[in-house]
Order: sequence, then structure tokens, then C-alpha cells
Amino acid sequence: MNFSDKVKSLIASQELFLSIPNKAKEETKGIYQRYENPILTNKHIPVLWSYDINADSNPFLMERIGCNATFNSGAIKWNGKYLVVVRVEGYDRKSFFAIAQSSNGIDNFRFWEYPIVMPETENPDTNIYDMRLTVHEDGYIYGLFCTERKDPEALDGDMSSAVADTGIARTKDLKTWERLPDLKSKSQQRNVVLHPEFIEGKYALYTRPQDSFIEPGSGGGIGWALVKNMNEAEINDEKIIDQRYYHTIKELKIGEGPHPIKTSQGWLHLAHGVRHCADGLRYVLYLYMTSLIDPTKIIAQPSGYFMAPQGDERVGDVSNVLFSNGWIEDPDGKVFIYYASSDTRMHVATSTIDQLLDYCRNTPRDGMRSACSVQNIIELINKNKATMNDEQ
Amino acid sequence: MNFSDKVKSLIASQELFLSIPNKAKEETKGIYQRYENPILTNKHIPVLWSYDINADSNPFLMERIGCNATFNSGAIKWNGKYLVVVRVEGYDRKSFFAIAQSSNGIDNFRFWEYPIVMPETENPDTNIYDMRLTVHEDGYIYGLFCTERKDPEALDGDMSSAVADTGIARTKDLKTWERLPDLKSKSQQRNVVLHPEFIEGKYALYTRPQDSFIEPGSGGGIGWALVKNMNEAEINDEKIIDQRYYHTIKELKIGEGPHPIKTSQGWLHLAHGVRHCADGLRYVLYLYMTSLIDPTKIIAQPSGYFMAPQGDERVGDVSNVLFSNGWIEDPDGKVFIYYASSDTRMHVATSTIDQLLDYCRNTPRDGMRSACSVQNIIELINKNKATMNDEQ
Repeated sequence: MNFSDKVKSLIASQELFLSIPNKAKEETKGIYQRYENPILTNKHIPVLWSYDINADSNPFLMERIGCNATFNSGAIKWNGKYLVVVRVEGYDRKSFFAIAQSSNGIDNFRFWEYPIVMPETENPDTNIYDMRLTVHEDGYIYGLFCTERKDPEALDGDMSSAVADTGIARTKDLKTWERLPDLKSKSQQRNVVLHPEFIEGKYALYTRPQDSFIEPGSGGGIGWALVKNMNEAEINDEKIIDQRYYHTIKELKIGEGPHPIKTSQGWLHLAHGVRHCADGLRYVLYLYMTSLIDPTKIIAQPSGYFMAPQGDERVGDVSNVLFSNGWIEDPDGKVFIYYASSDTRMHVATSTIDQLLDYCRNTPRDGMRSACSVQNIIELINKNKATMNDEQ
Repeated sequence: MNFSDKVKSLIASQELFLSIPNKAKEETKGIYQRYENPILTNKHIPVLWSYDINADSNPFLMERIGCNATFNSGAIKWNGKYLVVVRVEGYDRKSFFAIAQSSNGIDNFRFWEYPIVMPETENPDTNIYDMRLTVHEDGYIYGLFCTERKDPEALDGDMSSAVADTGIARTKDLKTWERLPDLKSKSQQRNVVLHPEFIEGKYALYTRPQDSFIEPGSGGGIGWALVKNMNEAEINDEKIIDQRYYHTIKELKIGEGPHPIKTSQGWLHLAHGVRHCADGLRYVLYLYMTSLIDPTKIIAQPSGYFMAPQGDERVGDVSNVLFSNGWIEDPDGKVFIYYASSDTRMHVATSTIDQLLDYCRNTPRDGMRSACSVQNIIELINKNKATMNDEQ
């Protein structure tokens, strides 16, 4: 094959791969629907981003810039298309943002021509990731994301310690982004999410204060803070609305996912909970609800996880992780949950507002003890026996 | 089946397994070629090493001595055969060395009749592993390896703390090994590699100084030291030639792989880089080049990793690890890269000197910030668009 045919073959075989339809998995839980294929992997990265297709400068048709992973994506419906703002990580371990879109939300995701050029502040970002998108009442689309820089107080020889802050950018077309000053806060902040409505005339943020880069320390939990404007956002009063608890799936760390969806029964939240195990950290997803009248008040708290890593999702660059920072609600109540597995690839699960509300309302609360978990099961068995008797 | 038939069947079925040809994987990167099967696993361990085949003393035809893993192997071309000096780990967690050979370098590896009997010094090795082979100008084949012993200063009840030193042995036939005194150094040393040529009339070592067994501490990086002779090798002056850097694939630890290959454009190095993640450590492989005139001077530093764990390679006794301490260059420029996945099994990837030099020369350098990575991609996209326009 000559060089030009090789390039054509490379592009054509990717095109074939991108066009594979995604089928629903057989699933019996009745809560959500998983799909057979990931929606985005590093194989979805456009050929033109990776290969120099010039025969003179790249005679071996060698990959010049490799992408390692496509994960933790914000999501938004835009001009009738399902868009995800993907965290793309290069072989160089730096992450950046790139938009991929699909017509049906479950397959045929294609990256836009260019990755997002995110302006920097006067303190350049070493790494940016995990954007949460919010179409705010004020007319802007906000992207809040994590920005990491080396800890200036790190000891000599410590190349790992980082400071994590919240970067803030906004846009009207998802192409040109205006960078605002980073969120000011007394503690490090990751997983900060902008609520879509004004509260008491202010912007409302879900926060996740922590003492250091990895450890939640004495703080922890999902916080809530009001800020006057996003041009100089500063957290002064912070209230913890969802706590960590001993021996639950949210023992070590928790963090808000995408911003909550407004429903007739309350704000529906998707979050992640983390625990330690012998093999490192385990990240799972859980749901909770807050009140429409007082969004800081929890009104539903189903026990345990909503989704946990399964099958091929279990293994990746950072194994044992599910993470979601994007979901899309369709006008008919269908919900597309975009989640990443093991810091490596993106998946979708679909559900409906009705199913998710039913799940939140009718899943037993956590009794915090083995005996309570057994009691819940016994009550369900007895209820089921009564149901079976009634039917005879 | 009677006992004797069972033994025959055991040996015949292994023989079948050992004879499976290894096919090239479909791979489009243009940099190297992976293969479908590992080249060595614990299933390759000879029957005679594991089973007592005497019906009286082993009526159940039971495995008597199990081998757990075959990994981190040195490599050398010897009498026209491709030889790997394998780190074999028993069920008892002790490692030792054994040679396996192949005619084509990619399949049909067979262990020699006996594992290597490595003489000890007056301070017996608890565990030995990760040999780097060097055919030195002085006429000997040297094997430098890690020797571990219990830390004499470990606290009572601490059964894990070890001291890692560099063991040195030499041979002329790969069968009989002469053990020399361990390398003397102010710090613990693993991943020490002997350069194949005299430098200023001395032996040159790639080193990896560290403060403690696992943590690199304030030291770290790949060092370089000259020693007068290998009979009483002692590191006095040590110069760091390749550094660790914040938020790269070589943030936490780095170490030289096999000794570098001499090319017309410089010394070609294969090394490993380690970073922390929520799931533990992640080991990937990277390349760099040093000057022929001054081997301590880096002249090419492609960003990011060269190879990372993929598919089945991701999981093993110590997951998320690629490691290489052996490669072979053929006279025609073909390169056999022998690498282990997840401390469990050995693989081969093939490339050529021309491809590896092209990779080192033309992969963008690490800009150390997300914005630079995005800029590199945008420049490549624009170059590709220009190429496409030219062709029209």
C-alpha cells in the first residue's frame, strides 16, 4: 500500500468503527439501561489529531500525539444534538477538553474539528479536567472545572503534591470560552458545580471543600455556597448539605456530579461516593434529592450505590471507578447519564425522570448497621409473601 | 489413564502449548508492533521443574513446586538465538533467574534445563530479581540485578521493610556465573544498569538512587556514575541525567530499563516512569536519547509514554504495570522489546532503530501544561489540513 492509501485506510477504518451502533444491554433492574459499547474511547480521537499525514515529514505514518483516555465528561443538549465535553488525556498525562456530539445520545459520537482552547489565568493551569456545564438563568453556559498546579509548598523532591482549584469559564457558543478568575475559597475545591437558577438573587454552588489534594481531612461532604457574581466568585459561608458516613459507600469522599435536574418532586442529584479498600479507592455513583423550596435540604436518600463498576468497566488506568459529571434530560423525561469507567472511557446509561424519582423515593434508607439491612430484606420478603398470597 | 500416560500427556500438552505461533496484533500506530500472546507465562515452566513424575513418591501426580510468574527479563542475542534471563517467581514469593530461548525472538521460547544458580556473597540474598545484561567491552557478560534483604533496622513486627542493593555477577557462557561484591553506594539502589562501553577508561553505570525501599524521597531520577572496576564497584560521584517532573508520566519514580542501544544519532534509552493514582502506582515505558559524545547529555525527550498497559496487560499480581529491562537489536536494525505486564508475564514488541529514532526526534516535547498539549494538537491539525489542501 502506498502512503496515501495507508492514510485513507486509517481514516476509513476509524470511520467504520465510529459508525458501530450501540445496543441496549440485557438488564433486569428496571432502574436504568446500560449499553454494550463505550460511547467514547481513545480510538475515537480523530486521525488528524494524532497522525501527521504528510509522507515527507512522517514516512512511517507514525502516531505523533497520542491520546490515552477519554473520560469524565460534562454534557449538554445543543441544537438538537447530544454533546459531551470530554476530558481527554494525552500520553503526556495532561488533560484538556474536547467536544463530541451524537444525534441520538447513545452512539456515533464524533469529535468537533478542534479541541477546546481554554484561556488561562495569570497562574497557568498544569492540568484541567472534569468540567460541569450549566446553562444558567443569566444567559451564559458556564463550565466549572478542576485546575491543578504544583503545590508551591511541596517538599524538595516531591513531584506529586498539587493544589486543586476550581476554574470558571463561560461561553455562548461552546467554541469561544471566556475564562473568569478561579473560585476563591479557604480550602482546596474540586467537584464544584453551578446550580442553574439564581437563589436569593445569587449564584449557588455545590462545593467539596477538602484540606489537601487527596485527603478530605476534617471537612468533606458536599457543600453549598452562594456567591454574588461569577466574575469574582468567592466562597465565604459554606454549608454541608450531604455528609460522609462511616461504613457506607460514601465513607471517604463524596462529590456532586453534574448539576441537579429540577423535577416536580424536588431537585434530583447524581453524585459519587468513595471508599478505601485494600486495592485503593473505589468510586461509585449514588442519587439523592433536595427540596424545591430549600435546595439545601435533603428530602430523599436511597441507601447504597446507584451504579458501580461492572464487567469491563472495572479495569482501566485507575481501576474500580465510576464517575459522572454529565447528564441530559430530554423534554419527554428520558435521561441520558454519561459516566466514565476507571478513568479510561465514557459510557451512557438511559433512564427516565419517573424511574429515578421512584428509585429515590422507594429504595430503603441506609440503616447504618448490618442488622437494619437484614431487617429491610425480611420486610420485603414478607411483603412479597403477602402479595403472593393475595394473588392466590 | 495410568500414571505413566498421565505424565506423557502432561508433557505433550505443554509441548503443544509451547509451540503455538505468536501473531502480530493489528496495530496502526506505526511505532512498534505488539503480539497476540505473551511470550512467557508460568505455564511455560518445564514440567520437570514442578512435578515429581515418580508414581511411588507422587501418586496423585501433584505439582510439587509451583511458579507464580515469569516477568522482568534481561535479554541478549547468543549464538544466533534470542535469550531472555527471566525473573521467575515461585509460589513462595522468592524470585530467581532462568534463561529461556527462541529462534525468532517472538515465540517458542523454551527454558534451559536448569535455572541459574547465582552464587551469594557473605550476606545472603533473600530475593534477587530484574537482571540487566551487558556485553561489555572488557569481554565479560555482566548481569546487574536487585538483591533484597530484610532491613536490619526494621521495627519489631515489621516484616516488610527491605534494603535493596545492586548485585553484580559476570559470566562468559551464561551458565556459570561469578558473583562480585554488591555495588557500594550511599543510598539504596535498584535499576542499576551497566553501560556497554568504557567511558574515560572506567565502567559507567546508570543508577537510581533513593532514600528508602519504596519512596524515591529527595533523590530520584536516573543517575550516572563512573567506577574504576567491577570487582569493587563503588559509587562516589553521581550525576542525575534524567529527572522526575511534576504531572508527567514520570512524576514519582523513574528507572533505566536495559542498557541503551548505540545508534548513529545517539544512545537510545528505554526506561520506566511511575505515577501515583487513586488505585496505586502506574508504571509505563518511555524513551529518551543521550549524546554519543557526552552520554550524560539528553538530546531527545519525546513527551509522555511510549507504551502503557493495554487490554489483558492491565491486570496481574501487581496491576497497571509495564516494565522492561531487556531488548535486542538485530544487525538489520530490527529491535525486540521484551516487556513484562503487571508483574506476571512476558511479552515482546518489535520495532526498528529507524522507527524508534523517528519517534524520539519527532514526537513533541512535553510542554508541562494542558494548554501546550492542546497547542501541539492544533498545530498538527492545521498541518494536516494544509497537507490535504496540497493534495487536492
